[in-house]
Amino acid sequence: MATQGQVITCKAAVAYEPNKPLVIEDVQVAPPQVGEVRIKILFTALCHTDAYTWSGKDPEGLFPCILGHEAAGVVESVGEGVTEVQPGDHVIPCYQAECRECKFCKSGKTNLCGKVRSATGVGVMMNDRKSRFSVNGKPIYHFMGTSTFSQYTVVHDVSVAKIDPKAPLEKVCLLGCGVPTGLGAVWNTAKVEPGSNVAIFGLGTVGLAVAEGAKTAGATRIIGIDIDSKKYETAKKFGVNEFVNPKDHQKPIQEVIVDLTDGGVDYSFECIGNVSVMRAALECCHKGWGTSVIVGVAASGQEISTRPFQLVTGRVWKGTAFGGFKSRTQVPWLVEKYMNKEIKVDEYITHSMTLGEINKAFDLLHDGTCLRCVLSTSD
Amino acid sequence: MATQGQVITCKAAVAYEPNKPLVIEDVQVAPPQVGEVRIKILFTALCHTDAYTWSGKDPEGLFPCILGHEAAGVVESVGEGVTEVQPGDHVIPCYQAECRECKFCKSGKTNLCGKVRSATGVGVMMNDRKSRFSVNGKPIYHFMGTSTFSQYTVVHDVSVAKIDPKAPLEKVCLLGCGVPTGLGAVWNTAKVEPGSNVAIFGLGTVGLAVAEGAKTAGATRIIGIDIDSKKYETAKKFGVNEFVNPKDHQKPIQEVIVDLTDGGVDYSFECIGNVSVMRAALECCHKGWGTSVIVGVAASGQEISTRPFQLVTGRVWKGTAFGGFKSRTQVPWLVEKYMNKEIKVDEYITHSMTLGEINKAFDLLHDGTCLRCVLSTSD
Ligand SMILES: NC(=O)c1ccc[n+]([C@@H]2O[C@H](COP(=O)([O-])OP(=O)(O)OC[C@H]3O[C@@H](n4cnc5c(N)ncnc54)[C@H](O)[C@@H]3O)[C@@H](O)[C@H]2O)c1
Ligand SMILES: NC(=O)c1ccc[n+]([C@@H]2O[C@H](COP(=O)([O-])OP(=O)(O)OC[C@H]3O[C@@H](n4cnc5c(N)ncnc54)[C@H](O)[C@@H]3O)[C@@H](O)[C@H]2O)c1
Ligand SMILES: [Zn+2]
Ligand SMILES: [Zn+2]
Ligand SMILES: [Zn+2]
Ligand SMILES: [Zn+2]
Repeated sequence: MATQGQVITCKAAVAYEPNKPLVIEDVQVAPPQVGEVRIKILFTALCHTDAYTWSGKDPEGLFPCILGHEAAGVVESVGEGVTEVQPGDHVIPCYQAECRECKFCKSGKTNLCGKVRSATGVGVMMNDRKSRFSVNGKPIYHFMGTSTFSQYTVVHDVSVAKIDPKAPLEKVCLLGCGVPTGLGAVWNTAKVEPGSNVAIFGLGTVGLAVAEGAKTAGATRIIGIDIDSKKYETAKKFGVNEFVNPKDHQKPIQEVIVDLTDGGVDYSFECIGNVSVMRAALECCHKGWGTSVIVGVAASGQEISTRPFQLVTGRVWKGTAFGGFKSRTQVPWLVEKYMNKEIKVDEYITHSMTLGEINKAFDLLHDGTCLRCVLSTSD
Repeated sequence: MATQGQVITCKAAVAYEPNKPLVIEDVQVAPPQVGEVRIKILFTALCHTDAYTWSGKDPEGLFPCILGHEAAGVVESVGEGVTEVQPGDHVIPCYQAECRECKFCKSGKTNLCGKVRSATGVGVMMNDRKSRFSVNGKPIYHFMGTSTFSQYTVVHDVSVAKIDPKAPLEKVCLLGCGVPTGLGAVWNTAKVEPGSNVAIFGLGTVGLAVAEGAKTAGATRIIGIDIDSKKYETAKKFGVNEFVNPKDHQKPIQEVIVDLTDGGVDYSFECIGNVSVMRAALECCHKGWGTSVIVGVAASGQEISTRPFQLVTGRVWKGTAFGGFKSRTQVPWLVEKYMNKEIKVDEYITHSMTLGEINKAFDLLHDGTCLRCVLSTSD
């Protein structure tokens, strides 16, 4: 209460330059303006998109900034006109907004929302097109409309999902990105039916969530494909029941899968971000109906290609962002599913650290043993 | 009746070599074997696929052969075990077979049928993997399982659609390829809903059939795109209500369409066979839901490409073969729709000639004034 309307000074991990270690700083976080929410972040995980922007390869990346987009916390205060959350509410910040009013939200066909994109895409807030973060008076850019590598952050009200206060925040923070992306790719984008054959390229968090989604959707064969054979052991727990390492074969991986499945799979998912694997994922689909969903995010400028005959003979090429979930509406529903033990979350958390150890956590992203590393923001 | 069981000698247009004028020859047509049907072809139209194989660019093209796949005729005789048609039945030969028994037919997800492909793909009949056509004892290959540039042809029973004997064969022969392809691309593959915006690239027969399909599906804006501005006048009759000539613009055509439609169209169709236009057709689709259907057939070896971000942000890339229609089941239904004046056919026929004038008809394919040229096979 004492902090409402005040600038809060707290710890945050600031990315000053691409590829340089993040710096834990005292950051000033301004109060929320009209339609904004200030959140005390309690737990945040790391995702590859953070690492991608941090690496400098993202041409839209802005520095200095505060990264982070997979987190959970408690509302500290709200700006004017905010009605759907109030101080004390437990929330998950959502990089996919949901305003329920724009052309996209009202289309009934997509979870992408257009309301705040023009601001979040350039690291600022809609109201005054400025940042709420500063260090010694110098502004620090927001990231993906979330900036969760901070003890406090300010987000647009359309980017806040209010969740069950009984949910453990150190776990459900994962429902801010990777796990819903995989589950939704299966349930919303591909709409996998019982009895289907599925191929999953890449068995990181996203690929494992695809496996879990496919299993609950009733898929029969769930083929995991990874260049790291150690991934199979864990993947079994998520529903993968066959494994192929492309390195064990001379033939292109699409041919291996087509042979293994009498003509190809019903559904395939690319969960790596590699454009040649995206092509293989399409081409291992069954003629006539096989559908391939791109989930991985490729480096800027890279392109996918194939012969058009692949599509003319009935394959379908799609993609997904946040698994097609409507964030404010469905993240709370996913939290409920977790509370009812209908979806896994704990199993993805392989490491826990503090915000101060964030550079170590970034290193872990490139370590095959790490799925998700959750950082506690309290010291 | 006198001909049943006998070799028939009749006129056919034989393609002896790529790119050399077809030769009208006396051809011997053997009687139908088990599961085969011999058809007296009365009318046949020309399609770009004939010209493509004739040009020598089709790596799977086999010579000498008898081309042709858009036709209508009367059953002359049937081989053993053929139960669904009998001599005298009016029929349309179908290059997409429908056996109702194979994995594809039973999937409920595609019109592609696997039953006779291994033979039709290499210019022979399934039963003995030989041709039924010969000239002076030398075999002439079949083409697409139809070979309709002949007064008589032999096809598999799974490739014959029995139609209403009252239907005028000189018109409904068009229901063997181009017109159903366009209509079905809209109705079966894209499933365009009322109120949609549609972009059609290429306003030949296929593009015009897409326009008609879109109009009957209730599309609001039907934007035709062609490098030949003369096409707009005719296209209006088929439902096109806006026209863009890419040559009139500096900007890439996808940007022109996106600007024109406040973010892109709901559905786009490529009806040319040009891989850069296929890319434009995808990229002019609306973020979040726009679906692009490839209908045109590109030259062998050519590839489509785009940034994966196009798909990750919700666009869908598909293709269609014979518009997704189940041939034996749905061609008769299309004939009924034509008889009830629910779909156009006559309007696509711009030229009529005899089989003897086929080389002139091939030239017309490259003439902007020709949609479909129908050849009568009787002298
Ligand atoms: N579309 C979205 O909304 C969305 C959301 C979150 C993450 N993502 C993207 O999903 C992708 C996967 O994320 P993650 O956290 O699971 O990553 P991860 O790095 O943990 O997993 C990737 C897996 O792919 C394997 N791999 C790498 N190259 C391979 C190859 N050539 N063939 C087979 N396997 C290969 C690796 O061994 C690893 O197991 C990333 O590109 C990420 O940016 C997309
Ligand atoms: N998928 C299938 O089952 C199937 C079936 C039949 C035909 N096809 C294919 O459909 C395509 C169209 O057939 P059609 O008979 O209508 O052909 P067509 O030649 O009559 O029509 C093509 C049209 O495209 C226009 N065009 C050419 N280049 C263009 C460009 N760069 N931008 C805009 N317009 C351009 C031409 O002016 C012409 O009006 C062909 O490739 C054909 O092989 C596919
Ligand atoms: Zn993420
Ligand atoms: Zn919205
Ligand atoms: Zn054709
Ligand atoms: Zn079949």
